[in-house]
Amino acid sequence: MTNIKILNSQDDNFDSQLKDLLAFETVTDSTLIATVNDIIAKVRESGDEAVLSYTQQFDKHPAVSMHELFVSADKLKAAFDGLTDDVKHALEYAAKRIFDFHQHQVETGFRFTDHLGNILGQKVTPLDRVGIYVPGGLASYPSSVLMNAIPAKVAGVGHITMVVPAPSGELNPLVLAAAYLAGVDSVITIGGAQAVAALAYGTDSISAVDKITGPGNKYVAAAKRAVFGQVGIDMIAGPSEVLVYAEGEPGDNAEWLAMDLLSQAEHDTVAQAIFVTTCPKQLQAVKNAIDDTLAVLPKADIAKEALASRGALILVKDREEGIAIINQVAPEHLELSLDDPEEVAHYVRHAGAIFLGRHTPEAIGDYCAGSNHVLPTSGTARFSSPLGVYDFTKKTSLIYCTPDGAKPLAKTADILAVQENLDAHALSARYRHDG
Amino acid sequence: MTNIKILNSQDDNFDSQLKDLLAFETVTDSTLIATVNDIIAKVRESGDEAVLSYTQQFDKHPAVSMHELFVSADKLKAAFDGLTDDVKHALEYAAKRIFDFHQHQVETGFRFTDHLGNILGQKVTPLDRVGIYVPGGLASYPSSVLMNAIPAKVAGVGHITMVVPAPSGELNPLVLAAAYLAGVDSVITIGGAQAVAALAYGTDSISAVDKITGPGNKYVAAAKRAVFGQVGIDMIAGPSEVLVYAEGEPGDNAEWLAMDLLSQAEHDTVAQAIFVTTCPKQLQAVKNAIDDTLAVLPKADIAKEALASRGALILVKDREEGIAIINQVAPEHLELSLDDPEEVAHYVRHAGAIFLGRHTPEAIGDYCAGSNHVLPTSGTARFSSPLGVYDFTKKTSLIYCTPDGAKPLAKTADILAVQENLDAHALSARYRHDG
Repeated sequence: MTNIKILNSQDDNFDSQLKDLLAFETVTDSTLIATVNDIIAKVRESGDEAVLSYTQQFDKHPAVSMHELFVSADKLKAAFDGLTDDVKHALEYAAKRIFDFHQHQVETGFRFTDHLGNILGQKVTPLDRVGIYVPGGLASYPSSVLMNAIPAKVAGVGHITMVVPAPSGELNPLVLAAAYLAGVDSVITIGGAQAVAALAYGTDSISAVDKITGPGNKYVAAAKRAVFGQVGIDMIAGPSEVLVYAEGEPGDNAEWLAMDLLSQAEHDTVAQAIFVTTCPKQLQAVKNAIDDTLAVLPKADIAKEALASRGALILVKDREEGIAIINQVAPEHLELSLDDPEEVAHYVRHAGAIFLGRHTPEAIGDYCAGSNHVLPTSGTARFSSPLGVYDFTKKTSLIYCTPDGAKPLAKTADILAVQENLDAHALSARYRHDG
Repeated sequence: MTNIKILNSQDDNFDSQLKDLLAFETVTDSTLIATVNDIIAKVRESGDEAVLSYTQQFDKHPAVSMHELFVSADKLKAAFDGLTDDVKHALEYAAKRIFDFHQHQVETGFRFTDHLGNILGQKVTPLDRVGIYVPGGLASYPSSVLMNAIPAKVAGVGHITMVVPAPSGELNPLVLAAAYLAGVDSVITIGGAQAVAALAYGTDSISAVDKITGPGNKYVAAAKRAVFGQVGIDMIAGPSEVLVYAEGEPGDNAEWLAMDLLSQAEHDTVAQAIFVTTCPKQLQAVKNAIDDTLAVLPKADIAKEALASRGALILVKDREEGIAIINQVAPEHLELSLDDPEEVAHYVRHAGAIFLGRHTPEAIGDYCAGSNHVLPTSGTARFSSPLGVYDFTKKTSLIYCTPDGAKPLAKTADILAVQENLDAHALSARYRHDG
């Protein structure tokens, strides 16, 4: 039996129930922060020695030298060559689609001449070096390698270093194969806060990068926050979530909807699966289907705990209310299992990715739709975006004044600088006006 | 006399000298972090009461109720109406140019149909609510109001809250006038970590925002880092810097170059002004011009300290070496005082803004070129961008599969999910393949 909460938007205390459901704070535990800060300080101080020692300690890695933590290009290629044909083709197909989608995100900058003859513009430049963090162990996903590395390649990043922890020295060969396929330049089997620190500050054997992307556990999240500013980071990832919305139309299939919710809940015990519907019968049908499926699902224990602690089936009055809840949740993944999903998507202001219609489950987006599966979690879709090519480039403003075109601007700058008591600013501008 | 360092790229220890020159860490002081975390916790706990109390304590603000900390729309309009004509026109001219430049940054998203008939796309949505931080006291700049608020307006942000501390209750009327001109929705005279916490978490009288932008002092920087994840932030701002590059051509004017360096150094004692040249004579001429100008500059004491502690005049062998140093510094502002600035700009990979030619001083960009003056500092131009319209929007991926178009994707997702031991993912995909 699923011990999942059932909420009704018409209940008096619904607002506070929804708020409680969504409450989740990563990285505010002061002991965790202190531990992570200590690890970062040690890596800055002792470099490779600290990284190796932490890797031996936390990952039970048998390596006795840093050198052993680097995966050779030959080993990456061998991993790819060793794949069965169907897996190889699936990986290639996914990579091709991810590449194609992200091509649409390429920015070229702009340049224009104002009426005074001055040139203004914006130049877009790829980052020199990025580090991508790929979780190891339980959640060692080749798809995450593609999702992080391919946008960086599309952006034109000069060098990609991938870190992936190898508990007891063991690595998923598919992760190495994906790194080979995506064109990752360097793979190091380290993880946790020590890997983030090594990427941010560099060590004798690991070159510092300019930005670190990719999700990780709470130590990785805390470390990314701590090094932010020294390097760029993509986001602070929280647990994964899905919100599935349906209205009880004839085409709906409770088994499909239940499985879509479970595909989120099986990730980990704090993953969040929320079902919102206008139809009480469908709510019950989905609940029953979850129970039936759990009985046969290998990761039923994880899913059960996730559903019990953070899942919910929510009955709403109408579509308008459904949309309001979607925007309040700002879900990482939003499935609109509807005949007319575009009608609802139009009003969705906050979501990482929207899966429209009954034939677009999140699982397709996780692997091979082409869009990125690294998405803003925990309501951060209010202000942040899927990982994309734009995360691997940055912009530079260009201003080029002609001697005459500079004069009206210099005059204005002079007046405003005087108001701000910035005399050298005013004088510097005045040279270009009167000079 | 200027006590500014003179470095020569041919010296044996130049690399370490340059590294020392650029070393600057904000927000790593653990006492500062503890203080800021405490302020944030108190604001989350006691809301308005804590905000008012901190404002009375830190800003010596005479207000006895939160209500008094809000600036009415009438007061904003009165501030604008009270400006002299030349200042009003200068502000309007600057606003118009900033608006025009940022129009070029507007993104529209994309949508395409793949060869299977599936629709893929990306939707761009403005943020609902943003908070802009405007420093008060010494560095209360109306130009910062325009630079933060106008890109948000161009993006289509629903509501802009501006916070600006008012030491002893005093406010620069020009800051209020700029808020009026830029269309800021709500102005609150609070500052520091307490203002950042109030914007991030909300209080009874202050609505929480989705993102906080704008530079501030070290307390503000630490608070922005601490609330990152709860809300978006633009960047962790460090001290302002300029790198001026010249080669000693006949058109060069040492007084102009010196004033451009001083316009950076007058900001505060940790501002950084670096001059790089291939010409020893010009280096000496600029040094002499700095000395001459300092004698008459009102903020000479600040500028002197900045130049002595963080400034440098650097002699390089040739242009190639100059470009290498520019890319290593990744300056916030780069002035290329050259006959052929585009030739050098082409090779600049890292800079917040590039000012090309002798008639484009940074001061023009600070006020009215149109490009943004909120720029990545302390070398973060390696991975981040000027504040822009893109900071006030976010993206959502769209995936809409047809029943037939879903099948090959579902098949691929199924194969890869099995490899990742995510059974519910595989089954969810399989329904769309075999279902």
